[in-house]
Amino acid sequence: MLLLRQGFSRSGWRRSIAVRQFRQDPTTGRWVIIAPGRAHRPRRFGSSEERAEAEPCPFCSGNEALTPPEIWAARAAESAADGPGWRVRVVPNKYPALTEAEPAAGLTDNLYPSQAALGAHEVIIESPAHDVSLGTLSEDQFSRVVLSYRQRLRELSRDARWRYALLYKNQGDGAGATLEHVHSQLVAMPAVPQAPRQELERAKAYFQATGECIYCVLIERETGRPERVIFQDEHFLALCPFAARFAYETWLVPKNHLPAFADSPEGTVQAFARSLKEILKRIDAVLGDPPFNFFIHSMPIADGADKYYHWQLRILPQLARAAGFEWGSGAHINSVAPEEAARVLRDGLR
Amino acid sequence: MLLLRQGFSRSGWRRSIAVRQFRQDPTTGRWVIIAPGRAHRPRRFGSSEERAEAEPCPFCSGNEALTPPEIWAARAAESAADGPGWRVRVVPNKYPALTEAEPAAGLTDNLYPSQAALGAHEVIIESPAHDVSLGTLSEDQFSRVVLSYRQRLRELSRDARWRYALLYKNQGDGAGATLEHVHSQLVAMPAVPQAPRQELERAKAYFQATGECIYCVLIERETGRPERVIFQDEHFLALCPFAARFAYETWLVPKNHLPAFADSPEGTVQAFARSLKEILKRIDAVLGDPPFNFFIHSMPIADGADKYYHWQLRILPQLARAAGFEWGSGAHINSVAPEEAARVLRDGLR
Repeated sequence: MLLLRQGFSRSGWRRSIAVRQFRQDPTTGRWVIIAPGRAHRPRRFGSSEERAEAEPCPFCSGNEALTPPEIWAARAAESAADGPGWRVRVVPNKYPALTEAEPAAGLTDNLYPSQAALGAHEVIIESPAHDVSLGTLSEDQFSRVVLSYRQRLRELSRDARWRYALLYKNQGDGAGATLEHVHSQLVAMPAVPQAPRQELERAKAYFQATGECIYCVLIERETGRPERVIFQDEHFLALCPFAARFAYETWLVPKNHLPAFADSPEGTVQAFARSLKEILKRIDAVLGDPPFNFFIHSMPIADGADKYYHWQLRILPQLARAAGFEWGSGAHINSVAPEEAARVLRDGLR
Repeated sequence: MLLLRQGFSRSGWRRSIAVRQFRQDPTTGRWVIIAPGRAHRPRRFGSSEERAEAEPCPFCSGNEALTPPEIWAARAAESAADGPGWRVRVVPNKYPALTEAEPAAGLTDNLYPSQAALGAHEVIIESPAHDVSLGTLSEDQFSRVVLSYRQRLRELSRDARWRYALLYKNQGDGAGATLEHVHSQLVAMPAVPQAPRQELERAKAYFQATGECIYCVLIERETGRPERVIFQDEHFLALCPFAARFAYETWLVPKNHLPAFADSPEGTVQAFARSLKEILKRIDAVLGDPPFNFFIHSMPIADGADKYYHWQLRILPQLARAAGFEWGSGAHINSVAPEEAARVLRDGLR
């Protein structure tokens, strides 16, 4: 098989992986990541009894030896790397979609462009305890988690190989998580991927046409006619967007114009932590701990000073599945009007 | 509530629906369909004992009164519309994403474009029996089903209001189906949606640059270096595409250049039925009856004579969920290389 090679050993980690590639589909122009090694990921969900019988959770305190060596941690001064004593711990993804070590596998081919799937893929373990969700963390711990997002995004932004870094979370089996222990992920890539690129292009075009940031205009519009506002304070606006793809889709947007999350001052990040905790608490309460994804869209690396873009977090509850219509048309059907979703999340009642 | 209006009565069907809209997101340019009425869809899966206790299945023979009146059916000569005696039956979707009756709800708004969600949404009930899947239908019944696809696509293509018709199937709860009785769906829309539009634009650009249909070129390439071929005959090629977004994604492509499915001659449609049955049988056998979606991409309505596009069916097994990375980046991670998927489906062994 062209694409398979033998398992290799690095830092004591032996695993059978295959060469990963970025590949472009000639009929759609879409890029995908072919990452055969990820098929071997363990799936671990269930009650604590089921867990006790199964393999130990690699993200629990005391099991640090089950992950690759840590990259960064918020830990007690007297504790040692890769031992207990941490509050937030960042490790390489053991089944990465992209790696720094990938050999150049791309061949020049006019019909089928491909290239080595270079990148970084990290896991941010958001608590040493297993049975917590992000919404139930203490305020202190929540701040620590969000400051660790900024810390890792800043660090990866210094690496000249990366052009975009995406921080995202999969909460619950129904949102694609493979481990239930609370964690988010961070992927750094050599190019800006399609979804943020599309937003950046539209924001740039809007700025060129009007001299204004489209997100600033949106914020003004939504706060002035608050049918889609869930809550707001001095720093952040939580709203259901006009053309939400998902039922109860929610955005969290800083009110001040800020292109890059990584450049946000500590006060903004603290305010963000408070708003994010509040919206997750409401989503859990109103929708009954639904599976959800969230991600931060921010300026590409090294473009932080530009004026036209505005970072934001988008939360996508996964109450229905994308199906044949969505995959076949590219358009989503949302069966809850954003105005109704905002009312429900605003009042805390369904 | 701006978006809600009272239930209404039509053809004996009383239901509480809300105004549907197409809405465009100003930050991404994506269109969505806001269809509040669909939140009331029943979900019906389970063993036959569970079903007997639950509501009767509206798609079973004998329960015709539980659906809106039929649009079309392949039925015995002596049988009457909306009674038993049919083999394939087409009815309006009771919880449509788009309808012909939608009042114009769109307001001109520079920031938030929207328009009335006009369209047609039909259900093709593919067998009078409940406990069958498409792959297990007899060859005769399979042909009948596929000919009914052509029949409905032809009929909708005559309606000057529609510009695109998407035929798709959701098989299994994990692929977004809400009823387990075997059926496919058909949505006709006043515009070409994003996913096929992207393909049409690329195919047109390729044709303008080279004078060739990109699908014809792909077919030649794949049959000449058959690492991604599952099987082929004189009429059809079944392959795993080079940049598959989903594990075991499979395309079925007619070998002769044919822009529109609805214009395919009966012999081609019969050959298509044989190949589709064969690939579904293999997918079920090798992957254990996985949930999957499929859809047909074809020329937009009234563009059938153009030379640059080539219809095809795309099957997307749903073995993993799209998660935060996919929604946040727009790029998919596929953990099974298409060459490996093709080998498995070719040999019938995993």
